[in-house]
Amino acid sequence: MDDAGTAMGAAELAACAGDILERLRLAHPRVHCITNLAATSFTANMLLAAGARPSLTFSDDEIGDFVRASRALLVNLGTLDGQRRSAIALALDAAREARVPWVLDPVLIDVSRPRARLAAELIGQRPAAVRGNGAEVAALMAMRGKATVNAFAAELGSTLAVTGALDHVSDGVRSVRLANGHEWMGRVTAVGCVTSALLAAFLAVERDAFMAASACLAAVGVAGEMAAEKADGPGTFQPRFIDAVAALTEAELASRIVIA
Amino acid sequence: MDDAGTAMGAAELAACAGDILERLRLAHPRVHCITNLAATSFTANMLLAAGARPSLTFSDDEIGDFVRASRALLVNLGTLDGQRRSAIALALDAAREARVPWVLDPVLIDVSRPRARLAAELIGQRPAAVRGNGAEVAALMAMRGKATVNAFAAELGSTLAVTGALDHVSDGVRSVRLANGHEWMGRVTAVGCVTSALLAAFLAVERDAFMAASACLAAVGVAGEMAAEKADGPGTFQPRFIDAVAALTEAELASRIVIA
Amino acid sequence: MDDAGTAMGAAELAACAGDILERLRLAHPRVHCITNLAATSFTANMLLAAGARPSLTFSDDEIGDFVRASRALLVNLGTLDGQRRSAIALALDAAREARVPWVLDPVLIDVSRPRARLAAELIGQRPAAVRGNGAEVAALMAMRGKATVNAFAAELGSTLAVTGALDHVSDGVRSVRLANGHEWMGRVTAVGCVTSALLAAFLAVERDAFMAASACLAAVGVAGEMAAEKADGPGTFQPRFIDAVAALTEAELASRIVIA
Repeated sequence: MDDAGTAMGAAELAACAGDILERLRLAHPRVHCITNLAATSFTANMLLAAGARPSLTFSDDEIGDFVRASRALLVNLGTLDGQRRSAIALALDAAREARVPWVLDPVLIDVSRPRARLAAELIGQRPAAVRGNGAEVAALMAMRGKATVNAFAAELGSTLAVTGALDHVSDGVRSVRLANGHEWMGRVTAVGCVTSALLAAFLAVERDAFMAASACLAAVGVAGEMAAEKADGPGTFQPRFIDAVAALTEAELASRIVIA
Repeated sequence: MDDAGTAMGAAELAACAGDILERLRLAHPRVHCITNLAATSFTANMLLAAGARPSLTFSDDEIGDFVRASRALLVNLGTLDGQRRSAIALALDAAREARVPWVLDPVLIDVSRPRARLAAELIGQRPAAVRGNGAEVAALMAMRGKATVNAFAAELGSTLAVTGALDHVSDGVRSVRLANGHEWMGRVTAVGCVTSALLAAFLAVERDAFMAASACLAAVGVAGEMAAEKADGPGTFQPRFIDAVAALTEAELASRIVIA
Repeated sequence: MDDAGTAMGAAELAACAGDILERLRLAHPRVHCITNLAATSFTANMLLAAGARPSLTFSDDEIGDFVRASRALLVNLGTLDGQRRSAIALALDAAREARVPWVLDPVLIDVSRPRARLAAELIGQRPAAVRGNGAEVAALMAMRGKATVNAFAAELGSTLAVTGALDHVSDGVRSVRLANGHEWMGRVTAVGCVTSALLAAFLAVERDAFMAASACLAAVGVAGEMAAEKADGPGTFQPRFIDAVAALTEAELASRIVIA
C-alpha cells in the first residue's frame, strides 16, 4: 500500500530547508556532477548560486580525484556515451571508498533502452536518493515489479524524489507530497537535472536523505514560483530561477510551501 | 535564372506561421537534434519554448531509439567529432526507415574541409530542408557547380533556407525573401543553429517544407525584433528571444513580417 | 622579491583597454577556443559581444584549419578528455607554425593531478599569457619552485594574469594590481574561463601581452561592476555581464578602474 503518511508540516519543512541552505552558504561543499550536455552550465550556475562548489569532469584519469575531493556526487544518465559510462563506474568506486553520498537521475530511461538497463544496475548500488519524473520512476518500478513509490523506496533502501505537478518524496517509511512550482519549470531544459544536482548539494550537508530531498523539492518549487513572478516567459525565467535560489529564505519558504 | 517569384504575401505567411505555432503548442512533438556544444542548451530551451519536446543524445546505442520516437530530426555539423559522425549515419538510417523528415545545418563548412566533404555527401540524402548562412550555402553550391539558390534547390529536391540580413527560402519552384530580424541575432552564439532546430520542429507538424521554412524564418525574425526591443544588449537579448518565440502570435507576425 | 612596480595609471589603462575594444569591434578577429563544457556557450557569447568571431571545435581533423584561420587561441584545461588532449597538441602545432598567440588557462590544476602534469608541460611552450586564480597559479609556481608571480613570469617569458578579489598581472618586468570586480563574478560558472577567452581576443589585436592582459582584466572587472548594478542575483548577472562588455567605453573604464 502507498500510504506512509505525511511526515511533516510546512513550517517544519521550511525550517529544515532554510537550515540546509544556510549550511551550504557557509560550508561551500564541493559537489561533483556527471551530467548531460544540456544541463552542464545551468547545473554549475545553480550549485554556485546555492553556495556549493561544482565540478563536472568525466575524464577517466581525473574523475577519482574529483569525487574523493567532493562531499556529494550526482550521476545523471543523459548524453550517455562511452566516456560517461566509464566515468560513472569509476566515480561510484571512488564514492563508495570515500563514503560520498550520491544521487541517481535516470533521465529519459523511458525512451532509451540502454539507459534503462544501466539504471536498473545502478539502483542496486545504494544511491542515497533517486530523482526522476513520473515516467522515469514508473519505468524503474516496472523493471522491479513494484506498484508503489513507497514500496519501491523501501526495497531500494534509498529515498525516491518524484517530481511533477505534484512532487512526492518517500524513503519507504516517511512520505510527503508537495504542490509548489510553476509550469515554466517544464518549459526550460534541465530543470529536473538541476534539481537532482541541488539534491546532491543538500545531501552534502544533510545526511538524512529524506529530509534533504523534501527540503530540496520544496526549495526548488518555491524558487520557481518566485522566479515566475519576475519573468516574462521561459527564457527570462531561467536566470530569475537562479536568482531565486540564491536569495531564498526560511521566511519565504514558510509562507509558500504547500504540502498536498 | 534566380527568379521563382515571391510565393506569398505577409498576411498569408503570418497565418501559416501562426497555425504551425499553434499546432506545436498542442501536439508537443518530439524533435531530436544532433547539434554542436555551443548550441546545446539554447536549442533545447528554444524548442521547449515553441512547444516541442527536444532530445539531444548522440550515443550510438541509443540514437536509433530517439530518432524513431521523434517527428523530426536536426543534423548540425558543428563540433564534428567521431561520435557525432557515427551518430549522424545511424540517425539518418533511422530517419529513412521511420520516414522522419530531417534538416541539415552545414555550420562553418566554409572554414572546415572535413565538414564540407560530409555536407556534400549528406545533401544527396534528401534532407527536407537545408539551413545555412550565405557563406555556408555558397560553399555547398560551389561544390555542385550551381550559380543560384533556386537552381540548387531544384537539383537537390530540398528546400533551402539561407539566413542573413535578408533571408531567402526556395524549393526551386517557390521562393520568398524576408527582411525581418535584428543585428543582435548575429551577436549571440548559435542563433543560426537554433533556427535550424526550430525549422525541424516546424517540419514535425507541417510537411510542406517550403511553407515550414518560410514560416520559421519569419517567426525567428519577428521574435528577434520583439526581443531586441526589451533587451539592453546581446546578453539580455538571448532570454528575451526565447520569451518572444514562446509568446508569438499570428497578429504580431502579421503586423511585422516584411517580404522583400 | 615581488615588486616590479606599478606599470601605469588608471587613465592610461582605460585608454589602452578602450583602444583594444575599438579594434576588436572593427576587425572582428577569429579566435579559436579549446575550452570546457561549462564554459562553451558563455565563451562564445562573450567573444561575440566583444566583437570577436569565436570557434570552438576540438576534432582532430579540423582543429588545424580552425587555428590557422584564427588570430589567437585559448587552451583551457577543463573537461580534459582524450579528444581535448589530442586537439591541444595539434592546435599548438598549428599555432606555432602560423604564429598565432595563445593563452593557457590551467583550470583546477590544484585538484587534478593529470591536468597539473599537462599544465607543467604546456607552460614550457611559450604561451603569450597564462590566466588562472590564485590556487591554480600557486600550483604551477610550486611545480617550478618559484616563490613570486614576477619571478615566475620572468622565467616563463610569458605574461601571468592572476585573478581574484585583487587581480595581478606581471610579465616579470612590468606589474599591475587591479581592485575592480564584484562578488557575483565568483558565483557564475566559467567567469574565469571566459576572462581567459577575452584575453585571447585582446591578444588578437594587441601583441604586447602585458598590456593586453592588464586591459582585459580591467575591462572584465569594470563590466562586472556595471552588470551587478543592473542584476538581482548571479542568474541575471550573467546576461548583464555580456551586455556590459558589449557596451563598454573608455570613459566608463576611466571612471571606474582602481589600481591597487
